[in-house]
Amino acid sequence: MKKNVFYAQSGGVTAVINASACGVIETARKHRNKLGKVYAGRNGILGALTEDMIDTTAESAKAIAALRHTPGGAFGSARYKLKGLDQNRAEYERLIEVFKAHDIGYFFYNGGGDSMDTAYKVSQIGKQLGYPVVCVGVPKTVDNDLPITDCCPGFGSVAKYIAVSTREAALDVASMARTSTRVFILEVMGRHAGWIAAAGGLAGQTQADAPHIILFPEIPFDEAAFLARVKDCVARYEYCVVVVSEGTRTPDGKFLAEAGTKDAFGHAQLGGVAATVAQLVRAKLGLKYHYAIADYLQRAARHIASKVDVEQAYAVGKAAVELALAGDNAVMPTIVRKSGNPYRWAVGKVSLAKVANKEKMMPRNFITKDGFGITAACRRYLAPLIQGEDYPPYVKGLPSYVSLKNQRVARKLEKEFVIK
Amino acid sequence: MKKNVFYAQSGGVTAVINASACGVIETARKHRNKLGKVYAGRNGILGALTEDMIDTTAESAKAIAALRHTPGGAFGSARYKLKGLDQNRAEYERLIEVFKAHDIGYFFYNGGGDSMDTAYKVSQIGKQLGYPVVCVGVPKTVDNDLPITDCCPGFGSVAKYIAVSTREAALDVASMARTSTRVFILEVMGRHAGWIAAAGGLAGQTQADAPHIILFPEIPFDEAAFLARVKDCVARYEYCVVVVSEGTRTPDGKFLAEAGTKDAFGHAQLGGVAATVAQLVRAKLGLKYHYAIADYLQRAARHIASKVDVEQAYAVGKAAVELALAGDNAVMPTIVRKSGNPYRWAVGKVSLAKVANKEKMMPRNFITKDGFGITAACRRYLAPLIQGEDYPPYVKGLPSYVSLKNQRVARKLEKEFVIK
Repeated sequence: MKKNVFYAQSGGVTAVINASACGVIETARKHRNKLGKVYAGRNGILGALTEDMIDTTAESAKAIAALRHTPGGAFGSARYKLKGLDQNRAEYERLIEVFKAHDIGYFFYNGGGDSMDTAYKVSQIGKQLGYPVVCVGVPKTVDNDLPITDCCPGFGSVAKYIAVSTREAALDVASMARTSTRVFILEVMGRHAGWIAAAGGLAGQTQADAPHIILFPEIPFDEAAFLARVKDCVARYEYCVVVVSEGTRTPDGKFLAEAGTKDAFGHAQLGGVAATVAQLVRAKLGLKYHYAIADYLQRAARHIASKVDVEQAYAVGKAAVELALAGDNAVMPTIVRKSGNPYRWAVGKVSLAKVANKEKMMPRNFITKDGFGITAACRRYLAPLIQGEDYPPYVKGLPSYVSLKNQRVARKLEKEFVIK
Repeated sequence: MKKNVFYAQSGGVTAVINASACGVIETARKHRNKLGKVYAGRNGILGALTEDMIDTTAESAKAIAALRHTPGGAFGSARYKLKGLDQNRAEYERLIEVFKAHDIGYFFYNGGGDSMDTAYKVSQIGKQLGYPVVCVGVPKTVDNDLPITDCCPGFGSVAKYIAVSTREAALDVASMARTSTRVFILEVMGRHAGWIAAAGGLAGQTQADAPHIILFPEIPFDEAAFLARVKDCVARYEYCVVVVSEGTRTPDGKFLAEAGTKDAFGHAQLGGVAATVAQLVRAKLGLKYHYAIADYLQRAARHIASKVDVEQAYAVGKAAVELALAGDNAVMPTIVRKSGNPYRWAVGKVSLAKVANKEKMMPRNFITKDGFGITAACRRYLAPLIQGEDYPPYVKGLPSYVSLKNQRVARKLEKEFVIK
């Protein structure tokens, strides 16, 4: 008998996670002879634990196709990491119980390292409990920190957004520097790895081009060297553009954003790292600054998504279903770089055990010796990932993003499961 | 004999101010029989005062055409307001002196209210000094606060950027709210008028849609009402999206951004208004927040410019030259709305005396009674201005923006003019 499919989105959403959902659902629909219904978790894995699942068969082919150009998480995502098996076996057992009740034989989990760990554990515990589930991870993270895969769907679009925004803002600052702002700071995401900050480096080609300084989480912040560089930059070019990762740390390992003092309410981190850096520039160099904090705008910016990223996001969704149908289990599709220039890629696969809970940091040779820029090697790696535009359709001047019906699957279990 | 033309950009630049420059230069080139060379001020009016002018005849037709899709100020702009005639007559006399030395008979000044005032004064003083100059303003301001013209080139593109970004970020927040951020705050420009904040309102259609709250400079911030609304919103929709104008003020007239405390260096305004509002939400409601500060990104975002805005920016540049050739003086082309739906517009004109130093605020009937949203009338006004996309060309995944040669015009005067 045909088993049903459970798909869930996990962790921070991206501009293209729904393109992966689209890939999963459209591919599953093409294999109706082998696969049952595709259920999606409302708010990710919480939907499975609480038996709050969405029946995607209620959505039209047109609505599902529109997921490809819609940012955010169409079914809801969750920041919820299942604990280790020893600590909370009940959660895993509950998942299997729900899967069993709804005849679910396939679990596609769309997320980062933590989620790959969960998917791996589910594949193991299912076997132990006598209800084997085919578990396939679908890679997603704007941070690009999953190992083995050459890059990670979600990253290319953030990278493009940051590179484009840096180039544009730099033109603004350059034209006003004589009488106005001298130092512009753009704060970008990336708590642990500097991939997103590095992407800002694509905005320019020469030393004179913005960004003049990139601050990476991988490089301890050297205040004196930083200030000297800003000063030199303003002297040479009249202005200085800085891209700073939210994860930039002081030499003693503290987040720079937390190095400031507390606000009126006694809370630290009033303005984040951009504000901290800006204050430093004003206090020590007396230069006028402006700063922008891209925050969610960067990972939601489907309007300027990378075409390569959209295609890869769809491809890993599609491949996940195809791998499952081919008999693979506890694997994740990967992006394999076949050639850099011209860029050619293919979908590979890796065992979930190998990607679970591992982070891929920027290699040191991707960062210039002085720690403030990206090398040619880094540029060669990043450049293909932002290639191509994939504009969403517009209605009345605004992108037309789909809202699904998100119709609930009737519950079958009596027991409530309370999320702690 | 044919007189030369002087063109200068003034004040904060926009995504489309270069489209106006393109309109001026291309139109002047079409009338080579009547007009001499087009010189541009390096760093705006400073270029005239210091006799640092750019010879645009050195630029190819292709380069000038590319200005239409290039953000920032291609010749440099300046935040520099000429004082009153009584206070600093020397500056005006210097301008006339430079114009005379370079046989400049036309002055096109591309800016906001202050610049229109300057252009008006130059037209008067030229006459008094026996060297009449035809002065035509070219409207530009992201703030949309120029009077008489239905809208102002530069605004439509910021409006589109803010509406698109709000819609995208809202999808992100909505999908994560259950386990993560509940309140998302987007800080936008507009020190005095709430037009840009209002544009955020276009992102949604119904009460349930984001943005749920807009904070305008025109409406004194009511903390209790704001917090009650946030709380209600989170209860109803699980999340709340706030668009806040940098110009939002407390009931006693202080900028909300300055209402916070000082930072480690003793400076106020560490994080701007978004940080202040965010802290309030956390302190009083205990809700998790995120905030974005669009800053220069919003006014430089040529990649998502409004087609209507680009066309209007070009049209006012073109019209400025045509008005001058038709014998008009001390005027500014305006945008006249012929019909709202379907949107039809034409270029009109107004005397500079009528627009100089006046600000157009949001009419009260454009803001809902509760002060937190936009009315149907406001929506009807704003909606046409963000219509259409006008994508720049891309090379290797990045928008291809032009850099001009900006070749200097040989100096003719011996006297240096020192900017105070």
